[in-house]
Amino acid sequence: MAVVEISVAPLGTGSPGVSEYVAGALAVLRESGLTYQLTPMGTVIEGDIGEIFPVLLKMHQSPFDRGAVRVSTLIKIDDRRDRSDHGMKHKVEAVQRLLAE
Amino acid sequence: MAVVEISVAPLGTGSPGVSEYVAGALAVLRESGLTYQLTPMGTVIEGDIGEIFPVLLKMHQSPFDRGAVRVSTLIKIDDRRDRSDHGMKHKVEAVQRLLAE
Amino acid sequence: MAVVEISVAPLGTGSPGVSEYVAGALAVLRESGLTYQLTPMGTVIEGDIGEIFPVLLKMHQSPFDRGAVRVSTLIKIDDRRDRSDHGMKHKVEAVQRLLAE
Amino acid sequence: MAVVEISVAPLGTGSPGVSEYVAGALAVLRESGLTYQLTPMGTVIEGDIGEIFPVLLKMHQSPFDRGAVRVSTLIKIDDRRDRSDHGMKHKVEAVQRLLAE
Repeated sequence: MAVVEISVAPLGTGSPGVSEYVAGALAVLRESGLTYQLTPMGTVIEGDIGEIFPVLLKMHQSPFDRGAVRVSTLIKIDDRRDRSDHGMKHKVEAVQRLLAE
Repeated sequence: MAVVEISVAPLGTGSPGVSEYVAGALAVLRESGLTYQLTPMGTVIEGDIGEIFPVLLKMHQSPFDRGAVRVSTLIKIDDRRDRSDHGMKHKVEAVQRLLAE
Repeated sequence: MAVVEISVAPLGTGSPGVSEYVAGALAVLRESGLTYQLTPMGTVIEGDIGEIFPVLLKMHQSPFDRGAVRVSTLIKIDDRRDRSDHGMKHKVEAVQRLLAE
Repeated sequence: MAVVEISVAPLGTGSPGVSEYVAGALAVLRESGLTYQLTPMGTVIEGDIGEIFPVLLKMHQSPFDRGAVRVSTLIKIDDRRDRSDHGMKHKVEAVQRLLAE
């Protein structure tokens, strides 16, 4: 099971706001049916890395469809295969449990 | 106002689990009094970049205090100065509003 | 034309050195025939993003073949479509020219 | 000894080219006297992390001095303390040696 964070940003659009482009990339992700969570700095996706990868490419492509000419995308993958409960929820809870002690 | 994401991971600890080190870095952050949010892929902090920066260095240092000999840290900064409502909550809401349309 | 940086690192291997795993991922890249450059913090690849993407997935997978159980991969994409000379060499030269002025 | 990669990019500038801002950040780094190397996707710096950190903040600040209102900065730190030869040159050579075998 992999947990993946992606952020997509157009450069040189003339406006510092990029929410419209982020929402466009998220619409692509939503169509995929994958489990995801929106955070203030990106979108976190959980699932099989082989299924997630083609969706990441589509998300990266989406700002070009809205007129962007340069897109900067950051992808961070945490892929763990020694336990089956590795996922978005478990990762946060494991840290919170330790912090509460 | 800046929104900053940081993730801290030790390399070569002998165990694939790193929650203990992440919790140690978060304990440092909690002491700082800065506003933060834990996500499945890192910790997001909000505030003045000049105040956040020294805390990022302390968080990066913390795994060495627990015996790590190599630490890999990733920091992503989104610093916006043309509007006063740029923050963790506003960033997520702006995208969600567009997605709901 | 896209310029992409990738770094691949196993977690919990018992040794802080990861060169062996990095070399394994690079061997995969070398077989692809894509143009690349090794830097101290990752590998930079240049080409069509559609051709690069499947190779990135193979590079991410390679440490598991060597026994790693958890792999952390970072991918940064700079994709520019308004000019044909966007590439590894041009990007560095454009900055060096400005610095020399 | 730490090896650190930084990339600094303004958002919403009206032009997809950002070399001018990258060169500005590099001018700040050059003044610091730290050892660095320019790559197609960022700048790699080598040295004591305590000395590097304040320079990273100055580099992040520099695009605002040129009129940018939003800056996106990515910092990746590889800090290794179990051997004294950990540096930019050694990291690349260790991988190249394995690849040549």
